[in-house]
Amino acid sequence: MGNFYEDNDDLRFYVERAIDWEPIVRLTEHDFRSPDGPKSTAEALETYQDVLALVGGFVADEIGANWRALDAAHPKLVDGEVKYPPVMEELFEKLASLELNGLNIPRELGGLNAPVVLMQVTNELFARADVSICAHHGFHGGMAMAALVYSVLEGSTTFDRELPGISSTRFQHVIDDILAGGSWGSMDITEPHAGSDMANLRTRGVLGEDGVWRVTGSKTFITSGHGRWHFVIARTEDKQGDDAFAGLNGLSMFLVPAFDENGVRTHTTIDAVESKMGHHGSATVGISFEDAPAELIGKRGEGFKYMLMLMNNARIGVGFEALGLCEAAYRMAKAYAAERPSMGKTIDKHEMIADMLDEMRTDIQGIRCLGMAAVQLEEIAQKIDIQLRFDPPADPAERERLEKRMKRAKRRARELTPVLKYLASEKAVEIARRNVQIHGGAGYMVEYGAEKLLRDAMVMPIYEGTSQIQGLMAMKDTLMAAVKHPRTFVRESARARWTSVSSRDPLERRVAKLEVARNQSVQHLLSRLAGHKLSELRHEPMGSWGSKLSHFDPKRDFALAMLHAERLIRILADVQVAQELYAQAKRFPERTEVLERWLERAEPRTAFLLTEITTTGHRLLRSLGHETEDVDQAAK
Amino acid sequence: MGNFYEDNDDLRFYVERAIDWEPIVRLTEHDFRSPDGPKSTAEALETYQDVLALVGGFVADEIGANWRALDAAHPKLVDGEVKYPPVMEELFEKLASLELNGLNIPRELGGLNAPVVLMQVTNELFARADVSICAHHGFHGGMAMAALVYSVLEGSTTFDRELPGISSTRFQHVIDDILAGGSWGSMDITEPHAGSDMANLRTRGVLGEDGVWRVTGSKTFITSGHGRWHFVIARTEDKQGDDAFAGLNGLSMFLVPAFDENGVRTHTTIDAVESKMGHHGSATVGISFEDAPAELIGKRGEGFKYMLMLMNNARIGVGFEALGLCEAAYRMAKAYAAERPSMGKTIDKHEMIADMLDEMRTDIQGIRCLGMAAVQLEEIAQKIDIQLRFDPPADPAERERLEKRMKRAKRRARELTPVLKYLASEKAVEIARRNVQIHGGAGYMVEYGAEKLLRDAMVMPIYEGTSQIQGLMAMKDTLMAAVKHPRTFVRESARARWTSVSSRDPLERRVAKLEVARNQSVQHLLSRLAGHKLSELRHEPMGSWGSKLSHFDPKRDFALAMLHAERLIRILADVQVAQELYAQAKRFPERTEVLERWLERAEPRTAFLLTEITTTGHRLLRSLGHETEDVDQAAK
Repeated sequence: MGNFYEDNDDLRFYVERAIDWEPIVRLTEHDFRSPDGPKSTAEALETYQDVLALVGGFVADEIGANWRALDAAHPKLVDGEVKYPPVMEELFEKLASLELNGLNIPRELGGLNAPVVLMQVTNELFARADVSICAHHGFHGGMAMAALVYSVLEGSTTFDRELPGISSTRFQHVIDDILAGGSWGSMDITEPHAGSDMANLRTRGVLGEDGVWRVTGSKTFITSGHGRWHFVIARTEDKQGDDAFAGLNGLSMFLVPAFDENGVRTHTTIDAVESKMGHHGSATVGISFEDAPAELIGKRGEGFKYMLMLMNNARIGVGFEALGLCEAAYRMAKAYAAERPSMGKTIDKHEMIADMLDEMRTDIQGIRCLGMAAVQLEEIAQKIDIQLRFDPPADPAERERLEKRMKRAKRRARELTPVLKYLASEKAVEIARRNVQIHGGAGYMVEYGAEKLLRDAMVMPIYEGTSQIQGLMAMKDTLMAAVKHPRTFVRESARARWTSVSSRDPLERRVAKLEVARNQSVQHLLSRLAGHKLSELRHEPMGSWGSKLSHFDPKRDFALAMLHAERLIRILADVQVAQELYAQAKRFPERTEVLERWLERAEPRTAFLLTEITTTGHRLLRSLGHETEDVDQAAK
Repeated sequence: MGNFYEDNDDLRFYVERAIDWEPIVRLTEHDFRSPDGPKSTAEALETYQDVLALVGGFVADEIGANWRALDAAHPKLVDGEVKYPPVMEELFEKLASLELNGLNIPRELGGLNAPVVLMQVTNELFARADVSICAHHGFHGGMAMAALVYSVLEGSTTFDRELPGISSTRFQHVIDDILAGGSWGSMDITEPHAGSDMANLRTRGVLGEDGVWRVTGSKTFITSGHGRWHFVIARTEDKQGDDAFAGLNGLSMFLVPAFDENGVRTHTTIDAVESKMGHHGSATVGISFEDAPAELIGKRGEGFKYMLMLMNNARIGVGFEALGLCEAAYRMAKAYAAERPSMGKTIDKHEMIADMLDEMRTDIQGIRCLGMAAVQLEEIAQKIDIQLRFDPPADPAERERLEKRMKRAKRRARELTPVLKYLASEKAVEIARRNVQIHGGAGYMVEYGAEKLLRDAMVMPIYEGTSQIQGLMAMKDTLMAAVKHPRTFVRESARARWTSVSSRDPLERRVAKLEVARNQSVQHLLSRLAGHKLSELRHEPMGSWGSKLSHFDPKRDFALAMLHAERLIRILADVQVAQELYAQAKRFPERTEVLERWLERAEPRTAFLLTEITTTGHRLLRSLGHETEDVDQAAK
């Protein structure tokens, strides 16, 4: 009888002490005004902990203990439908009976009304047991939430301030269906010729003379795409102009049911169930739509915007999922190393193995810290947004205060999210690989389970936006912030530099030194614009650039920054984790040693990345036909 | 109709221009005195190129083109024997008919008498098609060669200087059997409780009163261990003393046939065929010996020595195997990226992907350069050794010259080999992983083949000595060289420092700078001996240490060096590849750009590793209970 929540001290530290539950619970529970809801944060937290203990036990005993059967049992295509092996059918029946599908759904819509933070913690627990079950499970409640969120955003949900709660919502039938069990949804975006490149999507949405939208086209690599409810992105307007991104404006979001009321598949065909390297408990399908009746969500042309709205949540979700896998791999490695004797001692006492285990542990603590920060900020921002829509405070000053808080939270969540997605998924691969290596020959054998974790991990840096896409997003945001507000950037750079030499706290100095390296990277990338662009600004102080640069898009104009985007996001990861751990150490002095472990590894790494960014790349850019003035290393 | 030799310019550069064939062919062909052999290096090389063109075509069309079937078709245990699927049976029949099993075997023993260098090039070609087929194929000719080499070393082979050639050898029957096809051998070392830790092997060899040795025990993870000829390491003397390495002295090497003359299995049982992450064309078995009649090779207690004798060859073999896999992954990634459009251009024009492809190409060229240097040196050393045994020159001065040449080649081969094994196998994993990533979602799907290469690559840093073992070996040799000859080390350090600032050739300066960083790492590790050891020497100049340190074993005494062994071997890799590419660029100026690409990436990396070695590790050592005087980062 294991329990993946109760055995995890670092995770419990967050739930029991570090997470700032008060504002989240207050927003989620409408200031404790619901007659059916908890009356205080403490009361709510007690329930949350009960849920975590329940889930922690369930995933350990029912999923984690059955990993061999789940890995061996791929879903198959039988008579046009995806057939799960009995072991999975049974598992998902049990899951439905636990009512976890409605974890985040408001109480008045039949759910448990738990915060997203709690859901992400359960996500980590599920993923530690099996990421593919975690993923498929996520497409139940997650898609019910998507239906609700989309309805709120497009204005088709009403709220009763007296209840207080939602009084009606457009997709109530979707939510009801999923919460009843046996039904789930999917997000149908990728097409055979267009993955990260959404501007080239070809699936069409056409408005018939009968006023009904119909969708036609083929989607590929759709996780859990064998369910009833499909959020489909389709082209409703032709692409205007030659710009590589122009096609994004012509996309619309639709809800397409794949089955009719009787549960018979209609206007859709499952083309294939993919054989994948891992993730065997999750079906990845190709699906075609033929004049499938569809409900337009929001306005035509807003499809990309609606997709982006759920993207942050989805990426935070992958962060927690990857974290769960890291935890599984680390624990497996640690347990094996503690039992395996070699050269007169167990191998966890061998210096190199001990070093690996120490780094794995530190990375996991860093990722969890970043993830907890990101999910809290994202939830605060979203819930304030909903409050302002449905239940705004009467006092204008209070409204303004809330708006500011929302924007601040949203901005910081947006900074953290791609970094979390990047760091957690890359580390999942690295830690799973090290677990294999620590197992030696046994790591390569199926029966030990180490190789399964690596196979499962390998998709994480790919789905929900590849690591490279995360790098580009983070690079763009980071550079554009400096471009749009050069004075703020210069001021912040000066502050970091000053703190790095003058703070009395050596840890604060060290965190600031990482910030200095980050700022130097940004400044270097900004100052090496393509030769024909803004060269007149090159030698002027950044503070005087003003708005001259604000119409630039780093994703198009800054070749060197695009080249180094992945290196930059690795620096951002080192900095952000250090910042979050520093703030934590201030509150909880016993956590200082976590920060110290992080800094010890982050410092040489960040210096290395800064050197790579500032001294390499021009040869490669020239080979791609870019103008670049910088001299070669070789000519030094 | 592909051809993995003819389509590979970098590989052909070595065969056609860079390999120094003359001394190798001359040694292999006994100065062209054989009536049946070639009469010149040019004539021999023509044959070698024919062999490579033949193999290059065969592996491309018969193996590479069938990777799906080979990956899907695992060997199974049926009625106590390993059963290959028909696709593999047919393949190995074809391979036998090509007579490649005797590629390296002397002509007078029925082989083709080709150099080991040529065999390793074919090894790369095979591995590019499928590493598991490459591995199983290698246990045919490779084990025939092992039988010959062991017989030469123990003195049971005779040589006729008139022929010139081998006139009799103890294991002629083994060689004949393997060359006839359908038979192969294996090296049975690992046991369930002892992988890298050979001192703890428990399989016993007992000399009966009838004068017959009999072997009893269980071996595990034995590649191709379902064949007839087993080189088995077994304990013949009890372990003396408590030292973790003491048990190595009690091991002996045996040849054990698993079948009787009629091909019936005897005194051995196949316990299991492992289900592996990849490498599906190669059977990995558990095998038990029960009083199996065995032939002792060499003297009792020399088992570890005999194993070590083939180890260099085997590790160079893994280097070329990993290189072939790198080539396959790189070419797959490049071809996909050149065809996949995204954001208005093919993704090979996206800066980050172009950067990855550029690094993959550079790494492959670096590994190949290192591999070619290592295999030439190893072959020269081995063949001079054989010449000195069997056919020594009459002139004592000439003999002495040969001996010196042999020792020099052996020493340098020993320096390069663990680094090659380390670098190539780690890069195989990294490059295969990047190929998956460049493929995006398609990389995770079985049908595209990218994930198969990663699964196949994952065993490379584990077998034939894990990456960590390579690191320890290289660290030990590097540190002990400095410890035993401190003056040479100090002189060499001064030379590198001087060259790094004074050479007129900027490339020579850059190579020397890497050497300086390597020397700094070594010096740092030497100066941080455990507190109670040699602290009196700490503040004396190294040149004055003399022989005071020569009785130390870094694998036991230098905890910090053991912690940083993997970092040190990565620096050694950067330095050795740079040195070899620099020597190459001197001979072939058009290769200068390869060196430049290597240096561009090696420079920041080496600086980073040096920083890690010199600034981290003490916290971890303290946590393992080591005394260490150095202060924490945190206290800075």
